[in-house]
Amino acid sequence: MNRKQLVETIRQKKSYLCVGLDTDITKIPSQLLSYADPVFEFNKRIIDATKDHCVCYKINTAFYEALGLKGWEAMQKTVDHIPSTHFKIADAKRGDIGNTSQQYAKAFFETLNFDAITVAPYMGEDSVKPFLEYEDKWTIVLGLTSNAGAKDFELQQTDGGYLYEKVLQTVSRWGTTENTMFVIGATQAAMFEKIRRLTPDHFYLVPGIGAQGGSLADISKKAMNKDCGILVNASRAVIYASSKEDFAEAAAAAAKQYHEEMKIYLKV
Amino acid sequence: MNRKQLVETIRQKKSYLCVGLDTDITKIPSQLLSYADPVFEFNKRIIDATKDHCVCYKINTAFYEALGLKGWEAMQKTVDHIPSTHFKIADAKRGDIGNTSQQYAKAFFETLNFDAITVAPYMGEDSVKPFLEYEDKWTIVLGLTSNAGAKDFELQQTDGGYLYEKVLQTVSRWGTTENTMFVIGATQAAMFEKIRRLTPDHFYLVPGIGAQGGSLADISKKAMNKDCGILVNASRAVIYASSKEDFAEAAAAAAKQYHEEMKIYLKV
Repeated sequence: MNRKQLVETIRQKKSYLCVGLDTDITKIPSQLLSYADPVFEFNKRIIDATKDHCVCYKINTAFYEALGLKGWEAMQKTVDHIPSTHFKIADAKRGDIGNTSQQYAKAFFETLNFDAITVAPYMGEDSVKPFLEYEDKWTIVLGLTSNAGAKDFELQQTDGGYLYEKVLQTVSRWGTTENTMFVIGATQAAMFEKIRRLTPDHFYLVPGIGAQGGSLADISKKAMNKDCGILVNASRAVIYASSKEDFAEAAAAAAKQYHEEMKIYLKV
Repeated sequence: MNRKQLVETIRQKKSYLCVGLDTDITKIPSQLLSYADPVFEFNKRIIDATKDHCVCYKINTAFYEALGLKGWEAMQKTVDHIPSTHFKIADAKRGDIGNTSQQYAKAFFETLNFDAITVAPYMGEDSVKPFLEYEDKWTIVLGLTSNAGAKDFELQQTDGGYLYEKVLQTVSRWGTTENTMFVIGATQAAMFEKIRRLTPDHFYLVPGIGAQGGSLADISKKAMNKDCGILVNASRAVIYASSKEDFAEAAAAAAKQYHEEMKIYLKV
């Protein structure tokens, strides 16, 4: 999906919600455990229940890898089940030397049909570039993340400002606003105005509302640009809205609530 | 495998060679393609041919993920085929917020029986800690990598020296020399003496000899400590020593050559 299509989808739907499928087999309703593939069964129902309220799904690869082969299979089936109208992110935090990043790009952009992948910037340009070579695919580079550990390195001073600022500025030169986004945590709202000045036109993937405590109102006010420019992710707050049989209805209600709130904030 | 066992293995075998299984299905001999699982078939023969010369195998997860479900299956079978006498590294470069890193730790330390995983430090303490909680398992954190992109962030100045130096010093405080190693590229030999002063007792995983151009003599001289303290990885130079039917014999010969050289350098 290219930028024009993504922005058009956001405008038409009046939503910039991304639903995070961090599906933990120990947390899904017990009646699903009798299915051959409980994780896929859960995801399928969550997707069917929430798709009218979101424009994007984000699959957190860790939760699938933890289950081994069965998990990788559930991931594959889940990506295939997401409607082509929705932007599909592999939240995989990959990144390695060039010949290896090429293989990761192949894994997530060819073997699995994701639109985007999250990438860790530590190893520099040749670790990021192979992802940028795919047309109409997106590389979402870690900028300032939502967790407490952001202070350890991302918020350390370098000779070009905080490390994450140097990352934003440097990575911006490798790609374009048509193929590069940044992860900016919703818990970092105090920094959003400065971040927007550094990268006025980029899209941000914003995790950290809900379970992690970030405010949708705050980030929508501070981080939106003329094309919306943010995809706000909610995982646990949507998919585990209920732990009972009504989990899909509860997820739909939670997603709808974000959607209604987004209709108020969305200016595009 | 704990540190005592690892050091003892190195001493007995007089080898600190790690063979990297970056198995690319487009590069393996064509006669293997008729097998149900060509990648596993290749790995099995490489392992059987090289195991007397190395103490460690490193599986580069990207090459397996690129093949999807079949690749993940080949990875699982490969880990299971590596003898229990050998140290098993998942070169996966993972790292995410705490609840997600927990799942990655589960994936590679429980579901797959690796001894160690490589981890990217960008997201800080809570992204690394979940890996450190496993007894007799190792977290190998990216320090100064072998690729050109190392200059972009790792070699940027912070208020605590280069970023990679800050990473070495900070991460050293989170774990111990019994559960933490660092990735230091063999192409960075000029920095090795300083790196050794910062982290005198840690083990390093050293990729970058062979195809990437690092010198085994140089790094062995500059980076070894009283417990050896280095695992030197060769991937392409061993596994693709021949592209013909004699690939396993050629891999054995290449591994033997490193082994013979290591016997000269090893002082422990």
